[in-house]
Amino acid sequence: MKALLCRPGTPLLAEDHPEPRPAVGDALVRILLAGICRTDQELVRGYMGFDGVLGHEFVGWVESSPDRPELVGKRVVGEINCPCGACPFCRAGLGNHCPDRTVLGIAGRDGCLAERTALPAANLHPVPPELSDEEAVFTEPLAAACRILEQLNPGTAGPALVVGDGKLGILCAWVLSGDGGCPVTLLGRHPEKLSLAADGAPGRIATAHTTDWYPPSPAQRFPLVVEASGTASGLNTAIAAARPGGTLVLKSTLAAGEPQNLTPLVVDEITLMGSRCGHFPAALASMARHNYPLSRLVGARFPLRRGVEAFTEACRPATLKVLVDPAA
Amino acid sequence: MKALLCRPGTPLLAEDHPEPRPAVGDALVRILLAGICRTDQELVRGYMGFDGVLGHEFVGWVESSPDRPELVGKRVVGEINCPCGACPFCRAGLGNHCPDRTVLGIAGRDGCLAERTALPAANLHPVPPELSDEEAVFTEPLAAACRILEQLNPGTAGPALVVGDGKLGILCAWVLSGDGGCPVTLLGRHPEKLSLAADGAPGRIATAHTTDWYPPSPAQRFPLVVEASGTASGLNTAIAAARPGGTLVLKSTLAAGEPQNLTPLVVDEITLMGSRCGHFPAALASMARHNYPLSRLVGARFPLRRGVEAFTEACRPATLKVLVDPAA
Repeated sequence: MKALLCRPGTPLLAEDHPEPRPAVGDALVRILLAGICRTDQELVRGYMGFDGVLGHEFVGWVESSPDRPELVGKRVVGEINCPCGACPFCRAGLGNHCPDRTVLGIAGRDGCLAERTALPAANLHPVPPELSDEEAVFTEPLAAACRILEQLNPGTAGPALVVGDGKLGILCAWVLSGDGGCPVTLLGRHPEKLSLAADGAPGRIATAHTTDWYPPSPAQRFPLVVEASGTASGLNTAIAAARPGGTLVLKSTLAAGEPQNLTPLVVDEITLMGSRCGHFPAALASMARHNYPLSRLVGARFPLRRGVEAFTEACRPATLKVLVDPAA
Repeated sequence: MKALLCRPGTPLLAEDHPEPRPAVGDALVRILLAGICRTDQELVRGYMGFDGVLGHEFVGWVESSPDRPELVGKRVVGEINCPCGACPFCRAGLGNHCPDRTVLGIAGRDGCLAERTALPAANLHPVPPELSDEEAVFTEPLAAACRILEQLNPGTAGPALVVGDGKLGILCAWVLSGDGGCPVTLLGRHPEKLSLAADGAPGRIATAHTTDWYPPSPAQRFPLVVEASGTASGLNTAIAAARPGGTLVLKSTLAAGEPQNLTPLVVDEITLMGSRCGHFPAALASMARHNYPLSRLVGARFPLRRGVEAFTEACRPATLKVLVDPAA
């Protein structure tokens, strides 16, 4: 089958990659659409030392599923962490932190930028018919945005600043203004993305361009700040914008070794909360409630045979979500 | 009066500094003993742009106190933050984060490395007679250690690692093993300080030398880590030792611009909690409960007239607490 492989510097399109061999408990899924994410770019730069099939955002059809045969023929999305199920983390309900887990297209398991992928049937969630493929493929990043509300005490929510107008930043802004009920300010560098985010929000979103923005006075800082830019300057902006006693959610990984001034975290007693993957049922329920205009976040769509070109397009700073269609 | 002034590079002993002029609400306190802290060293290096009388750890006698006359003649310790009392932070009970506050010997207010100091009477707490001056002078740093238990949900406590065997690290280890009820491991570079910490602890403290220490496997990492070394390598150690889903309390300020790899905070969803000043009543109650051997943390005692020498001694990496006695 065709598959986009992680290789140093640039991915490689394999024309005759071996078909996935489902392990016990796995389902076999034919990919309808897959998304390219910033993490995929980092993997190609060497993050995690991964060298398998890229991709962890997908919607697909279940072709076989011995453990959950009722899924066969269903359109599904799939959670990406595959925990061992037996270790102390798994037993404590922290399977996403299982030290022996594999992660779809990231660690120890081939991903979904391919014609087919294998994933534990337990990870799959049927997609409601009212969601298009182009919406459903956003379930994984939307779940990551919803994760913020899983981690925060409701009392800590309030006026929120989201730093970064990429896909993840926009999704965080939508979730916080929708399910979070927060007045949201989105800070970014791309006027067209800021407009897109504000127009499609379920609640009120104010936008600000980074060049017009200065750290507010202490009393006007935000009790909740989300750093979703993945840049050192974005993190410094986020720290400067967090109110004393406030919470800063770190959604994006940063390049290692960037200089940072963390002293304000101590002086202002700010809580910095690392935040990663969320649960898909919460994301699917949030989509149903708020009807986010997810398909407006699609910047381009490529057939898998042009996967390398799709990847290059996804790496452009100003681009929106790049989708890959294995059947096209 | 004699006073030790903050000057770039090294402090200056003034022989005839003007006596403090108490403002409305202030008490006038004659200093019995004052401590030198790492923050004082940072102030001399330029932190906060402070140029007044140094010092924020003291025990003293109240000479005058128009607003709380019952304090006159009492031995007291004093909270260092002097909030405005009227702003949104003060009204929300976050006076320690009041943007208009002055801070004893740190911001906008002369400190206690002097014969006398002025501080709002509301900040003063009488010292029980069973505490010696050498114990009472540790109230401020002990309150900073107790602050950890004010901020954490009890449910997040558990086996704890404290990184850094300086005074603050040892106090944190004692508080966590005493009031926190946590089994504590203290990690440091000074065998004599590690022994001192373990021998004097109210609960069980294991110790480890940094050169013999390697990051534990994920299942053996700590649900609670306290960084009290104030070094970039200490913070990296603390991050590597925190269990996925765990809490890392940042007690020490770090030099600005140190390179840090914060990616594990996201991947392992670690909560990094900045932690600063605590409340004195909690610290005094903790002293009464656990009878910490605080006077063993005293490394040297100098008369104020040798204040510059005392400061130099306090800057030596291996030293313990340096105290200054204005009457000697």
